[in-house]
Amino acid sequence: MTDRRGALLDLRCEVCEANKELAERGLARFTFGNASAIDRESGVVVIKPSGVPYDAMTPAQMVVVDMKGDVVEGSLRPSSDLATHLELYRAFDRIGGVVHTHSHYATVWAQSQREIPCLGTTHADYFHGAIPLTAHLSADDIQSEYEANTGREIVRRLAGIDPLRMPAVLVAGHASFCWGESVGAAVETADLLEEVARMAYATLTLNTNADAIPAALLDKHFLRKHGPAAYYGQGKS
Amino acid sequence: MTDRRGALLDLRCEVCEANKELAERGLARFTFGNASAIDRESGVVVIKPSGVPYDAMTPAQMVVVDMKGDVVEGSLRPSSDLATHLELYRAFDRIGGVVHTHSHYATVWAQSQREIPCLGTTHADYFHGAIPLTAHLSADDIQSEYEANTGREIVRRLAGIDPLRMPAVLVAGHASFCWGESVGAAVETADLLEEVARMAYATLTLNTNADAIPAALLDKHFLRKHGPAAYYGQGKS
Amino acid sequence: MTDRRGALLDLRCEVCEANKELAERGLARFTFGNASAIDRESGVVVIKPSGVPYDAMTPAQMVVVDMKGDVVEGSLRPSSDLATHLELYRAFDRIGGVVHTHSHYATVWAQSQREIPCLGTTHADYFHGAIPLTAHLSADDIQSEYEANTGREIVRRLAGIDPLRMPAVLVAGHASFCWGESVGAAVETADLLEEVARMAYATLTLNTNADAIPAALLDKHFLRKHGPAAYYGQGKS
Amino acid sequence: MTDRRGALLDLRCEVCEANKELAERGLARFTFGNASAIDRESGVVVIKPSGVPYDAMTPAQMVVVDMKGDVVEGSLRPSSDLATHLELYRAFDRIGGVVHTHSHYATVWAQSQREIPCLGTTHADYFHGAIPLTAHLSADDIQSEYEANTGREIVRRLAGIDPLRMPAVLVAGHASFCWGESVGAAVETADLLEEVARMAYATLTLNTNADAIPAALLDKHFLRKHGPAAYYGQGKS
Repeated sequence: MTDRRGALLDLRCEVCEANKELAERGLARFTFGNASAIDRESGVVVIKPSGVPYDAMTPAQMVVVDMKGDVVEGSLRPSSDLATHLELYRAFDRIGGVVHTHSHYATVWAQSQREIPCLGTTHADYFHGAIPLTAHLSADDIQSEYEANTGREIVRRLAGIDPLRMPAVLVAGHASFCWGESVGAAVETADLLEEVARMAYATLTLNTNADAIPAALLDKHFLRKHGPAAYYGQGKS
Repeated sequence: MTDRRGALLDLRCEVCEANKELAERGLARFTFGNASAIDRESGVVVIKPSGVPYDAMTPAQMVVVDMKGDVVEGSLRPSSDLATHLELYRAFDRIGGVVHTHSHYATVWAQSQREIPCLGTTHADYFHGAIPLTAHLSADDIQSEYEANTGREIVRRLAGIDPLRMPAVLVAGHASFCWGESVGAAVETADLLEEVARMAYATLTLNTNADAIPAALLDKHFLRKHGPAAYYGQGKS
Repeated sequence: MTDRRGALLDLRCEVCEANKELAERGLARFTFGNASAIDRESGVVVIKPSGVPYDAMTPAQMVVVDMKGDVVEGSLRPSSDLATHLELYRAFDRIGGVVHTHSHYATVWAQSQREIPCLGTTHADYFHGAIPLTAHLSADDIQSEYEANTGREIVRRLAGIDPLRMPAVLVAGHASFCWGESVGAAVETADLLEEVARMAYATLTLNTNADAIPAALLDKHFLRKHGPAAYYGQGKS
Repeated sequence: MTDRRGALLDLRCEVCEANKELAERGLARFTFGNASAIDRESGVVVIKPSGVPYDAMTPAQMVVVDMKGDVVEGSLRPSSDLATHLELYRAFDRIGGVVHTHSHYATVWAQSQREIPCLGTTHADYFHGAIPLTAHLSADDIQSEYEANTGREIVRRLAGIDPLRMPAVLVAGHASFCWGESVGAAVETADLLEEVARMAYATLTLNTNADAIPAALLDKHFLRKHGPAAYYGQGKS
């Protein structure tokens, strides 16, 4: 097996595992979610097939597509959200994985059409500020190239923001997309987003006037975990 | 065994399994729910016996009744909601199964006496618009033929709506009824309704002014999964 | 073994089992709950010992007391809520078991100092009207004979109500007491009360103006399950 | 092995076990929490290492530090919240263990920047009054010695309060700290705080005007479980 084919096989396994984890962590019931990863060197994306249940999913079922979305390997149809994933990979060149879920509380915020304010250090530890929300697409943008337009709208909303400091977005009336350096990191982020969204829901239903934390506290918590001055954890060897 | 008797035996198994699933999926605690299926050819309905716990239920305990509700086979009394099921089978001639549960959030909406607006794509993927709510019955309609009148009120409320595009209803002050081409499909719909009801509850307690999604987005999501132009999933072979 | 001693031994087992079930059904965490049963013939009550964890509890640890609360059998101290149980047994002569829990939603209603209105048929199937709430005790009634006074206040609140049609009460700022013909029935009622309290919580946070169901619907549901004209379930053989 | 070294080894096991329990009881997901214990005789503190997952944690990984926070034993970096723990041990000389978690409802109250009022006897059984909330730190106090300043602010807030009658605090915009005579007691308190916080959340979202219970009831419940006149449980032998 060539190195290229070996790398792709490993990526199929990673993507399959990531999709199964969405179900195991309670982030995706039914078929409400999909995960993908990119192999930047060969320019292909590995993604979940459409409408296939998580528990019986195997690496061989994953679909490999090129950057135009054409299937390169695999006999199943790719996730119907593929075009959204591709837009994100094109725009954010340091990300290696994308995850879309309808996890409960993140979806509730998307449905409420509100950004998730940074109400506490749990949020600040992982996301550098409020979780952004996209605008609704026009009827035209929904009727034609809906999934690609969803991706373009996300990219527009993230303009001027480092996607690794803000690795999540809420799509109005729909649900969330998360990303990261790997598909595993994107799954972890989707799980953290759900936790943060759940805390923010209860905080604002308890106190509708609850304020975002001060900027100094946001920076302190984000930067003690991320970037060159981080002192949380055991460091990287 | 004749084909007719074989088909009926299979239907008993399906209905028993569907009732057990209501408990296993957390949609019915205690004896709060019942599922039935119809054999259109022979004009009989198979339904759960009244007040029997789910875990010890067997196919032989299912009750077979004719369209007047008279027991054709079985030694137990049928579900007290039988007459409601029969009204639905009479009015909606393409459905094969009916499910009634007191699942938590769907019941909360029925108790709140509010329709569930379509607040997001999770809802739009399965239900083409707001989940309808019946009006309260009059005292007379409660005192006499209560269960049949409940069914008639549901049918009245669904007038002009395709029951396969809107396979669920909320009965005011009571709970939900769901249906589908098979009893298994009706169970799946009951589970999806509960999920959608739970998301809508949290959305409106977070933002009491949250709007229904635009019609274009509702159509896009419903129609990418249902009908001749669907492109979600792997198609039907 | 005499019949009397045999009956008492069986009652110890029933009470022990009922206490364990409070934990297993999620109605009592830590040591937040206690169950008792009465042997009307010999005039003794069997009750949980105070502060003993549920998982290691055995029938031999149950405490047998007379109607004055004096220990007749057993080396452990009885539940600190014993005097409340005794008041209920004295006032409601057709009940055989009493259960006290701090189950989540029932306690939330008690803390909110609101009766639970009958918002739906799930409630009406088991409780004939709103779940009553006691008034706060005076400081004097708290400082002296607190537990007996709690029982007396419950009895006062239930004046004119059939305790088998309304087998539960909320004690203001505290939690719930339930009862029934047996201790097993009282546990089932505590579980149903929690379910009803949870539904009513979500109903009123979703729609603060939600109304109680009409009297005709309340009667219909209660009476199709209870009393001489009941037609729910398989009847009593 | 000397007695000193044996005691320290036992403390490592206790602290490791306490950290694992935070995860097992659902109080800490990801790496959201840390527990420590102090050996008053030798003046050392045993604490969780930073950023290590709970399930694979072993006693040998625990970090032993002196009261200045310098590592005495262990090859891993201590929890980044160490300096907060040390301030609490210095100020509250009768406590033996400290626990910090981001458990859901306690964190929601901290984010809401509200004290948890004593709304019922479940609360009064364990905490003698409202759970206090700290003020936000200044930007200066965040930028320099953030963790120690957090501890100092907690100590300031607890001035005049017996820390064993009020063994918990909410840090504004952050989460809770709990303590007790041992690290095991502190874990139990963290669990009880979460339960109380969850009940208070639902109580106030149901009835925004719910009042704290009368002082006589608070005293009755706290004192029947704690102090010289306690009559709950089986006493101490």
